[in-house]
Amino acid sequence: MRVRKRKGAEEHLENNPQYVILEPETAKGKWQQVFGNQNPIHIEVGSGKGGFITGMARQNPHINYIGIDIQLSVLSYALDKVLESQLPNVRLLRVDGSSLTNYFEEGEIDLLYLNFSDPWPKSRHEKRRLTYKDFLKTYEEILPEHGQIHFKTDNRGLFEYSLASFSQYGMTLKQVWLDLHASDYEGNVMTEYETKFANKGQVIYRVEAQF
Amino acid sequence: MRVRKRKGAEEHLENNPQYVILEPETAKGKWQQVFGNQNPIHIEVGSGKGGFITGMARQNPHINYIGIDIQLSVLSYALDKVLESQLPNVRLLRVDGSSLTNYFEEGEIDLLYLNFSDPWPKSRHEKRRLTYKDFLKTYEEILPEHGQIHFKTDNRGLFEYSLASFSQYGMTLKQVWLDLHASDYEGNVMTEYETKFANKGQVIYRVEAQF
Repeated sequence: MRVRKRKGAEEHLENNPQYVILEPETAKGKWQQVFGNQNPIHIEVGSGKGGFITGMARQNPHINYIGIDIQLSVLSYALDKVLESQLPNVRLLRVDGSSLTNYFEEGEIDLLYLNFSDPWPKSRHEKRRLTYKDFLKTYEEILPEHGQIHFKTDNRGLFEYSLASFSQYGMTLKQVWLDLHASDYEGNVMTEYETKFANKGQVIYRVEAQF
Repeated sequence: MRVRKRKGAEEHLENNPQYVILEPETAKGKWQQVFGNQNPIHIEVGSGKGGFITGMARQNPHINYIGIDIQLSVLSYALDKVLESQLPNVRLLRVDGSSLTNYFEEGEIDLLYLNFSDPWPKSRHEKRRLTYKDFLKTYEEILPEHGQIHFKTDNRGLFEYSLASFSQYGMTLKQVWLDLHASDYEGNVMTEYETKFANKGQVIYRVEAQF
């Protein structure tokens, strides 16, 4: 997600350390302490403007959510949403998807979400796609045995690629949706992108894949 | 594929034993003799009116093709096409997809095609879908190690089901197409259904899955 630079985004994040974990290395292995309970922890890699993670956090108060994004401005908009709803079960990190093992112990995360990740359509950019095997390896390390990735996107090329990538990594596809909004899937929380694309009549793809 | 009963279909098939193998049990383990060469043998399970298999046979003269279908009338139309082109590398069988091990030795078939199989959308009919695990077991037996199934359909529900079924059986998805006709896939041979659905603007799904 590319958004215009937001003035004061950095200060905004720094001023809200109750939600934005500024030194996440120090929280590694201690995320239950950060949240102050033993509820499951779900992470969204590339949480963008936070519509999904805050919606999920409202819907599931007994699950803790961590949103990570590398872009300052985007993360600051997510923070707005968290502040607005004063959600106790959300934290935000400004880190990179490839460095997750620096911030989470093996098996510390119960479920991982990828939503509308950048498709990086050119073959030479394959390694940047968040469903590339090197990323899967990282996710596998922070998830429990047989942990799951739940992924949705409107991008056909990325979804085709990701199904094959999950499968070739040795993951099992538990369920696939080739038109999520036409299906009977319940409790779907829309991301900002999803609302926009769905309004245009585009198909939304979804998969639940298990290590 | 349901078609109106064709008068004289049975006689038509019986009168052309050079193409229609009437006692396929006797050919088990001897298919190279049937074709008179050692070329690879590809099978289409549910070959319908034969548009795909005859198109493939014309395109690839050094591959032998076996089309199977349980419906007499349908098979008789496929025979028309084979006769029309006098294709030496096609044979037709009137047998059921679940009984393949009666007619083929382990590893005797090099590649298996499923095209526009009956979707059997009701859950209680799951076992009839040609991508149900019991069928996969049968296919696995007649294919070589790491043999492949190439499957295409316009039916979203059946494709969603089949991707998960292949994966849960332990197969690997080598490549997935979520809009075959919009892709750069070359050499696609259309089935009768495919032409009809594509003309209506429907999306065609395709997958290559490996045991």
